[in-house]
Amino acid sequence: MTAPLHEPHPARPGRALPDTQAGMRRRNLARVMHTVSAEGPLSRAAVASRIGLTRAAVSTLVDELIRSGLLQELGPERPGRVGRPGSALAVSGRGPAGVGAEVGVDHLAACVVDLRGQVRARAVRHGTNRGRSAEPVAKDLTALISQVVAEAEQQGLWPAGLSVAVPGLIARDGRTVVRAPNLDWHDTDLGALLPAEFTPTVDNEANFGALAELWLGESTPRDFLHVSAEIGIGAAVVVDGRLLRGTRGFAGELGHVPVEPEGPACPCGGRGCLEQYAGEEAVLRAAGLEPGEGRVGLLATRAEAGDERVRRALSDAGTALGIALTGAVNLLDPQTVVLGGALASLAPWLLPSLEAELARRTAGPACPVSVSRLGPQGPLLGAAHSVVRAVLDDPAAVAERR
Amino acid sequence: MTAPLHEPHPARPGRALPDTQAGMRRRNLARVMHTVSAEGPLSRAAVASRIGLTRAAVSTLVDELIRSGLLQELGPERPGRVGRPGSALAVSGRGPAGVGAEVGVDHLAACVVDLRGQVRARAVRHGTNRGRSAEPVAKDLTALISQVVAEAEQQGLWPAGLSVAVPGLIARDGRTVVRAPNLDWHDTDLGALLPAEFTPTVDNEANFGALAELWLGESTPRDFLHVSAEIGIGAAVVVDGRLLRGTRGFAGELGHVPVEPEGPACPCGGRGCLEQYAGEEAVLRAAGLEPGEGRVGLLATRAEAGDERVRRALSDAGTALGIALTGAVNLLDPQTVVLGGALASLAPWLLPSLEAELARRTAGPACPVSVSRLGPQGPLLGAAHSVVRAVLDDPAAVAERR
Repeated sequence: MTAPLHEPHPARPGRALPDTQAGMRRRNLARVMHTVSAEGPLSRAAVASRIGLTRAAVSTLVDELIRSGLLQELGPERPGRVGRPGSALAVSGRGPAGVGAEVGVDHLAACVVDLRGQVRARAVRHGTNRGRSAEPVAKDLTALISQVVAEAEQQGLWPAGLSVAVPGLIARDGRTVVRAPNLDWHDTDLGALLPAEFTPTVDNEANFGALAELWLGESTPRDFLHVSAEIGIGAAVVVDGRLLRGTRGFAGELGHVPVEPEGPACPCGGRGCLEQYAGEEAVLRAAGLEPGEGRVGLLATRAEAGDERVRRALSDAGTALGIALTGAVNLLDPQTVVLGGALASLAPWLLPSLEAELARRTAGPACPVSVSRLGPQGPLLGAAHSVVRAVLDDPAAVAERR
Repeated sequence: MTAPLHEPHPARPGRALPDTQAGMRRRNLARVMHTVSAEGPLSRAAVASRIGLTRAAVSTLVDELIRSGLLQELGPERPGRVGRPGSALAVSGRGPAGVGAEVGVDHLAACVVDLRGQVRARAVRHGTNRGRSAEPVAKDLTALISQVVAEAEQQGLWPAGLSVAVPGLIARDGRTVVRAPNLDWHDTDLGALLPAEFTPTVDNEANFGALAELWLGESTPRDFLHVSAEIGIGAAVVVDGRLLRGTRGFAGELGHVPVEPEGPACPCGGRGCLEQYAGEEAVLRAAGLEPGEGRVGLLATRAEAGDERVRRALSDAGTALGIALTGAVNLLDPQTVVLGGALASLAPWLLPSLEAELARRTAGPACPVSVSRLGPQGPLLGAAHSVVRAVLDDPAAVAERR
């Protein structure tokens, strides 16, 4: 039986494995991995009771996972506990690991995350990618990836897959950048330019940001709308712990929701889109600043210092976000809205007007808004963790592959 | 093992049955039912080849489904086909059936649909329910339900469940009408007022309309946005063949997406909501007509006759729908938008401006818009079919119940 380690978009849990004895074994291996990952260290007996299988069945599964290097035994549990001591199981800190990478408008980054969720290697390269073609960018990114993978290999890890976050619309093939306006890329097969031995997949940065929030955020619910921004404004819709991707993979384009039907023209073809009011360039213009690298930091510094023009620009952006989010909340009824990406650091000046707008447009209690702690780290971490999740979701595929 | 025949919201496919031998058997029973339902009549061998199980395994499952009255044998297949003749299997036209009911603002309705999807009994009661409390409405509805069930029983059918469509927000408990502004119901436990022996569940009419489109529409995709209207404007989001319900069950409130941020106040608490431009009352007002029963028909008649004021009112409503739908399409990236409910009959005058707005606000190809053939029949049919689908999704539960 062959099952791809990655789906085209790696981070879709709930994929149906075949409903046969072999499929059941695969799913039960995944259950053991997820249980130990979420609650470990655990004894075999504790795993058995949590997933509702017999101790004998669990032992067979555990032995297989230890042989594949996915689980490890920590030795007998400390005395003082009730009952016969068992050997505690933990997810391995060696073996397969997830490689994440990020193409930002003004930086590149790569990292390696082990199955325990720890970042074990990381590298960043600053410098604008605006107007550079995909080939040299992919070459630079590949060099960063090779660097972090080499570091990880010295620690006994090996790459189980590579996910790359890009600020643009990605086709559902998980490799083609259909449109990345701030990089000026169109219909670019980025997957083909990345190291094939790592089975790369490409996804939108806002999607990876939302997944990072789902997997790593503190008490993030399973239904939320994640809003993020680098230069554009992206969003991702998470429903029952799954990313809503849309037919073409383009869902979450909050930046092009009309806020003023006859407002300024937008390059997307629309008028009065949210990005014309709350996108980085619109806010910089309103604040009287020139666009350029590191401008979000400058906005925060000036707002902090009490610059009235900057504060007004951010407050107006918050109002526009509040109008667009009212529509989104009415359509999706999420449990919360999470502000992530670069927006997170501007939250103190965006939130008051944003929340006021949501509240005044809602008869009942308004949808709560929270601020991501991951901020701009979200997409890179989400990319690496999506590979880790794919291993936990189908550990048998890793064993077959190695 | 007990499994409820209905979930609180009956029409959620993909519910995880336990991953055990017994669970596998249950899922395989469902596969056989769905295969015969979609493609029957079929021989046992044809079913086996379609679902990838052995002929022997399928025969055991089929025998069980025949004993429960869910499948029937039609006798040997007609000669002239290649190979040894097998006995063709069909879904039973007797036995369990779905009961659907509808509370409209100006009517009540009930029907019974058999497992083959045929409407076998139907009853309607005209007259306004505006301002009536839930008790007398539920009493009248129960009388209609009893009438269609009695008719169905004379045909050898028995009610496997009851689903009721209501124009309002329904809690995820599947029984409480949280808010139905046009009935003036608030936090009304409608489930408690309906005949308990049919295990009633209550859902929003737009949700049932969308499910009817998914199940009964011609070549409806599995990702679409369904827009419907009786007095309010509702929508339902279907993603990969599933209804997106939202945290509280309130998703799909397209009518309260802001279209003009500083437009007229809306009872929802917002301003410039779509309903203020494209809701039935707003359109009647713009057309110079008084609100009242059967007004949608009057709008259609006058528009047909060339009444310029009516045509302009409908065209403006189409523009407002186009603006709100641009936002929804950007967020959800559906394959199509389907106009259903009362709107369907007004499509000739709404669609041109609606589609023009979508096209001018979209850089690439605009999301296609189609018109439901079910129109105002959708919610009632969707309600009855949701019970039928629940039987197909877990036939073992019916057998245990009867």
